[in-house]
Amino acid sequence: MHLCECGSPLLVRYDLQQVKASFQREALQSRSHSLWRYEELLPIDDPEGVVSLGENMTPLLALEKLGQELGVPRLFLKDEGALPTGTFKARGAAIGVSRAKELGVSILVMPTNGNAGGAWAAYCAAAGIQAVIVMPESAPVMNWKECTLAGASLYLVNGLISDAGKIVARAISEYGWYDASTLKEPYRIEGKKTMGLELIEQLGWRVPDVILYPTGGGVGIIGIYKVIKELQEIGQLDGRLPRMVAVQSTGCAPIVKAWEQGKSESEFWENAHTAAFGITVPKALGDFLVLEAIYETEGCAIAVDDKEILEAQRQLASRQGLLVCPEGAATLCAAARLAQTGWIKKEDEVVLFNTGTGLKYPETVEANPEVLEPEDSLPG
Amino acid sequence: MHLCECGSPLLVRYDLQQVKASFQREALQSRSHSLWRYEELLPIDDPEGVVSLGENMTPLLALEKLGQELGVPRLFLKDEGALPTGTFKARGAAIGVSRAKELGVSILVMPTNGNAGGAWAAYCAAAGIQAVIVMPESAPVMNWKECTLAGASLYLVNGLISDAGKIVARAISEYGWYDASTLKEPYRIEGKKTMGLELIEQLGWRVPDVILYPTGGGVGIIGIYKVIKELQEIGQLDGRLPRMVAVQSTGCAPIVKAWEQGKSESEFWENAHTAAFGITVPKALGDFLVLEAIYETEGCAIAVDDKEILEAQRQLASRQGLLVCPEGAATLCAAARLAQTGWIKKEDEVVLFNTGTGLKYPETVEANPEVLEPEDSLPG
Repeated sequence: MHLCECGSPLLVRYDLQQVKASFQREALQSRSHSLWRYEELLPIDDPEGVVSLGENMTPLLALEKLGQELGVPRLFLKDEGALPTGTFKARGAAIGVSRAKELGVSILVMPTNGNAGGAWAAYCAAAGIQAVIVMPESAPVMNWKECTLAGASLYLVNGLISDAGKIVARAISEYGWYDASTLKEPYRIEGKKTMGLELIEQLGWRVPDVILYPTGGGVGIIGIYKVIKELQEIGQLDGRLPRMVAVQSTGCAPIVKAWEQGKSESEFWENAHTAAFGITVPKALGDFLVLEAIYETEGCAIAVDDKEILEAQRQLASRQGLLVCPEGAATLCAAARLAQTGWIKKEDEVVLFNTGTGLKYPETVEANPEVLEPEDSLPG
Repeated sequence: MHLCECGSPLLVRYDLQQVKASFQREALQSRSHSLWRYEELLPIDDPEGVVSLGENMTPLLALEKLGQELGVPRLFLKDEGALPTGTFKARGAAIGVSRAKELGVSILVMPTNGNAGGAWAAYCAAAGIQAVIVMPESAPVMNWKECTLAGASLYLVNGLISDAGKIVARAISEYGWYDASTLKEPYRIEGKKTMGLELIEQLGWRVPDVILYPTGGGVGIIGIYKVIKELQEIGQLDGRLPRMVAVQSTGCAPIVKAWEQGKSESEFWENAHTAAFGITVPKALGDFLVLEAIYETEGCAIAVDDKEILEAQRQLASRQGLLVCPEGAATLCAAARLAQTGWIKKEDEVVLFNTGTGLKYPETVEANPEVLEPEDSLPG
C-alpha cells in the first residue's frame, strides 16, 4: 500500500520555486514530441532510462461540423486514441512503470476495467516487470487479449472493478507485490496530468473555457487540475480556470449524484452497468479530489445514457471521421446537452477528451453489409 | 480510370530542380509533427484545405531485446499503428482524399482488403465525400465496422480483392465514379512515400542498410523507393540505397516467386490465403515497380508462414510491449531468417515496418484467462 496513514492517496510534490526559476517554454522546442518533454514536472530520476513505446503528443482536433451543429463553434477534441495501446492509459503506464523500474520493482499487481491493464501489461513487458492484472469478466475481450499477448498474468473476476480491487488488496498483503492500483501509487497521476500539459501548450499556454472528461476513477480530471495549479505556481498560467465537467453514464453516476447533492464524497453505486465500460467505477478512491476540482472550477457533473453515447459515436465517425471509444463519445453528448441548457455558451472554447480508440470496442458497432458474388454489380 | 493509355500506373512528378533550390531541412523544424511537413514533395495545391485527422509522425523504436537475440543489434521498428484508423493506410487516404477534395470529387469507389477501406471511409467522412467500398467477405470484421460507422457504402464480396477490383471497375465504367483503387490514382502513393521521408529524417537524413516491408499491393515499397530517388535528386541524400526486402506470406507470395525466378513481373497466385490478411494480393498492379525497387537496391523477397507470424506477434508484445498487426510481425520473421542465413549482417542497421496496430486483428490472439469469484485469492 502506498497511501497516507490516514488512508488518502499520496500526490507527488515538486520544488516548484526551483522549477519556476529554471523552466523555459522555448526549451521545449528542441525536445521530443511526447509527454517526456515536460521533464521538470515529472517524477523521473533518469530520463535516459525511461520505458517508452513511442508516445506522441496527441492531436487537438477542431470539430468544425459538429461544433456548428451544436451551437458550439469552438469545439475541439483531444484524441488520446493515438497513444500506444490505443488509450490515455498509456500516459499513466509510461510514467508509472518507468518509476517502478527505477524503484527496482519485479512484480506489480493492479485491478482494472481493462484499458489500464492493457497499457501496464505492455509497458511492463518492455521493462521486464511481471504484471499481474485482475479485471471484470465483462471487460472488453480485446483487453484480455492484449494482456495475455504481452505476457501478463491475467485473471478475470465475476464482478466489478471494486471486486477486482479487493482481490488485489489481499494479494498485496499476502505476497508483498507492488500496488499499482489507481491512486494507490502516486506516479500514474503524474502521467495522466500530461494530457493537461499538452492541451495547454497546444492552446498557446492558456486553458480553454470548458473541459469535458469521461469520469470513472477520476484520475484524468485530478491530473489535469493538478497540473493547472502547478503551472500557475511556476508562472506559466494566469489564475483563470477551465470549468471542468465530469461526464458519467446514467448506469454508473456516483460523482454526478454527489455533485447534485453538493457533497464532497460519493457513495457506492449499486448495480453499475454501461456500454462505456471504462467508466464503470461504482466508488472512486479519489472521488473527493474529482469533486473538489469540479467545485473549485465552477464546473459540473452530468450523466448521459448508452443510447445517446452510441449515437454520438456514430456522429463523430460519420461527420468528422473519428472512431472514438464510448467513453469519449459520452463527452459529445454532454456538450450537446450543456449547450442546449445554456451552461455552455456559444462563445465558449470547449475541449472534449476522447480517452481511447473505438478499435478496442468492436462490440459497440453493428455492421451488416450486403454480400455480393464476383459477377454482381454495385447499385448506382 | 486514371492510368496511362498503355495501362500502367501514373506517378506524380515534381519540378525537382525548383524544390532543390528552395528546400531547407531547417524549415521543417517549425512545421507540424506530421506528414504535412513535407509540403514541397506533396501534390497539394492548398495546404490550408487538407483533410487531416491528426496524423503524427510515427515513432521509430529500437528493438533492443529482440535485436540482441536475433544477432541484429541495430534493429528498429517504425510503428505505423499510431496513425488515425490504426494503420499506414491513413497516409494514402490523407493525401488521396485531400487531393480528391481539391478536384471536386463527390463519390469515390475502391476495392480493399480492409484497412485502406477503413482509412478512406474515415477521411471521406471528414471531407464530405461519399465512399463506396468493396472488400472480401473474409476481411477482418473490424474493417466492416469502421467503414459502416463512418457512413461509407460498404459491400462484401464472396472472393478476393481481385474480385472486388473487377466489381469496382464495372461500377466506374457504368457510373463514372472516381477510381481510388491502388495505383489507379496517383496520389495515394504520394502519401505512402512519407513513411520513407519520416524514416530518413528520423535517422538524420540518411537511409538504413536494410528495410523490410510487408508486401501486398506493394505501394509502401514503391513509395519509399520513389522518395529516396526524389531526395537524391534534390541533394538531400547521397547515392547509397537501403536493400529493400519485400516480405510476403507463404500463402500468397507472387512477388517472392517472381524474384526467385528473376522475372520483372509476377503471376496471379492461386488460392491465396494467410493470417496476414492485408497482404493477400494475388497479383499487384504495381508488381513490376516493386520488383524494380528490389533489383535496383540489391534487396530480396522472402515468404514466411502463418505460424511464424503469430509467434513473432507474441514476441513483439511480450518482449518489447508492442501489439503489432500480423503483416508487421511478418517482417520480424523475415529479419530473423535473413540474419540466420547471413544476408543481414551483425553490423547492419535494419528497419522493420509495422503497418498497423494489432488491435484491428483480435482474431489472431487467443486468451483464455482464469475466472475468479470475488472471494477467491490469487496464486502467489
